[in-house]
Amino acid sequence: MAEDDLISLIAESTNRAASDVLIGIGDDAAVIDVPPGKSLVTCTDTLVAGVHFPDGAPAHSIGFKSLAVNLSDMAAMAAKPRWAQLSLTLPTMDEPWVRDFLAGFMVLADRYNVILVGGDTCAGPLSITVQAMGLADRDKLLTRGTAKAGDLLAVSGELGDAALALMLLRGGQSVHSQLLQRLHEPEPRLRVGSALAGIASSCIDISDGLALDLERLLRSSGCGARVDLEKLPASKHLEKLPDAQRWELQMTGGDDYELCFSVPPKRLPLLENMIRTTAVPVSIIGEVTASAGINCYDENGTVIQLRSSGYQHFENTDAS
Amino acid sequence: MAEDDLISLIAESTNRAASDVLIGIGDDAAVIDVPPGKSLVTCTDTLVAGVHFPDGAPAHSIGFKSLAVNLSDMAAMAAKPRWAQLSLTLPTMDEPWVRDFLAGFMVLADRYNVILVGGDTCAGPLSITVQAMGLADRDKLLTRGTAKAGDLLAVSGELGDAALALMLLRGGQSVHSQLLQRLHEPEPRLRVGSALAGIASSCIDISDGLALDLERLLRSSGCGARVDLEKLPASKHLEKLPDAQRWELQMTGGDDYELCFSVPPKRLPLLENMIRTTAVPVSIIGEVTASAGINCYDENGTVIQLRSSGYQHFENTDAS
Repeated sequence: MAEDDLISLIAESTNRAASDVLIGIGDDAAVIDVPPGKSLVTCTDTLVAGVHFPDGAPAHSIGFKSLAVNLSDMAAMAAKPRWAQLSLTLPTMDEPWVRDFLAGFMVLADRYNVILVGGDTCAGPLSITVQAMGLADRDKLLTRGTAKAGDLLAVSGELGDAALALMLLRGGQSVHSQLLQRLHEPEPRLRVGSALAGIASSCIDISDGLALDLERLLRSSGCGARVDLEKLPASKHLEKLPDAQRWELQMTGGDDYELCFSVPPKRLPLLENMIRTTAVPVSIIGEVTASAGINCYDENGTVIQLRSSGYQHFENTDAS
Repeated sequence: MAEDDLISLIAESTNRAASDVLIGIGDDAAVIDVPPGKSLVTCTDTLVAGVHFPDGAPAHSIGFKSLAVNLSDMAAMAAKPRWAQLSLTLPTMDEPWVRDFLAGFMVLADRYNVILVGGDTCAGPLSITVQAMGLADRDKLLTRGTAKAGDLLAVSGELGDAALALMLLRGGQSVHSQLLQRLHEPEPRLRVGSALAGIASSCIDISDGLALDLERLLRSSGCGARVDLEKLPASKHLEKLPDAQRWELQMTGGDDYELCFSVPPKRLPLLENMIRTTAVPVSIIGEVTASAGINCYDENGTVIQLRSSGYQHFENTDAS
């Protein structure tokens, strides 16, 4: 199978009717129509083998996750994803692998009506870059830099499951299927993100761990935060762990793809109404403060120091 | 330097005023305004070290080329590029390398008023994915699938210089600076592409060699072509070579980033007028034919068989 056959396979496996796509896969570029009055929201994320997914991860999951991490960014902006491009770098042409990968990608694409409009294929170390494009109302965008001191701090879903799954996998231990799913096929919180428009004052998705992503939100906003560690939402799998280990996984583990957001106290009734109408739980975990930095407390009000701050590329290769 | 510092460096090095960018680098996604009445044109290309550029290629050139190959796709659609995203995978955090890379990227971005609005950074084998977005008038788009038998076949610029440069580099020979520039910092033919709207009946950019890219255009159009090899435009560097070697480089060498297009004979006066008003030369190299396949002829009308067909990833790893 040569490159052109691979492109044909991708085109056939992902072809969906879409009246807003004038030109899709198969030309030098794709051409789409953006409806008048909407802003275009666009993001891109790369997954590298051995960095973003374990070697030997199922192709289906890699396909799913490569789109999920992008849709999670869309969710954090309260945008509705619509189009995607896929750049696939493969060490060898393995047709069954590609079919599984595309099947995983399309499960999520179809769930949210996302059309694959183009991309690129090449030979090289396994790496996937997806670029997602979507639509948002300009006055309903959620951003990082707009939290205010006194706002409540909240997260969607539960934190730490993906990090626990990865820890168990690395230790050669058995991993519950729910944990594996949270690691391999995380559900982007698109419904929560769009429901938060008009409620949240700021929002970010948690990809590199709550500590690091919250720090990014706070730095952009010129604020700090108090986090009550016992309020961090934990699955039954996490609840079994000792406090210190659970908090570490929840604060710094990464790969959660939940949303972290701030809510002005006067909008708390709106938030409570939103929680009632969406199936995803939301937990208030602390408060935005005027002074910079994140202070974590246990249930007795004792300050807890975490060992690491979250996942940053290049942290250990720093020469400067 | 950690990942967030790298993102700050990219944001500072590429920051340009742009009223159509509502949110640029630094949030979960970028937000842009597409002017009403225009279609959005989008493409993406990945460059992998050792595949798309030689190991040891200057960082400035890699930055330039990573955008150039995308703008070349825009040119082939008669689109005007406007925004880009950059996904940068680096084996180690090498700040001088990144600065050189960004300088090369921005030389071309500034030349065509392209704004970098977002991207991603991660650790892994050196690889760059750029995604370009631009605007086009729906009724002036150039596409691959619309050539007709009897149309004239033409190319912009000169063919084979990049392939000759690569051949000399691999042989450890000295390479003329003009050839090196054609390999490392090819100029996307944006002015030609937009001038061809209303003149060309179809268009493709030549990235994998004329033979392969022309074959793609013809397959999309359901046609074939006659190519007169002696009409292939050659630089003074190529002209010194024996016919067979020159033709091989020009037909199958790749990395030219010129445009190949078809023109209905009745529009020849329009094309000749366009050639007079643009600085880039255009050469008529043959004709579109009704029967499939590409037939190449020398100046005596003898059919010439080429040894290879062009650059395809995975061609030698085929197991199916």
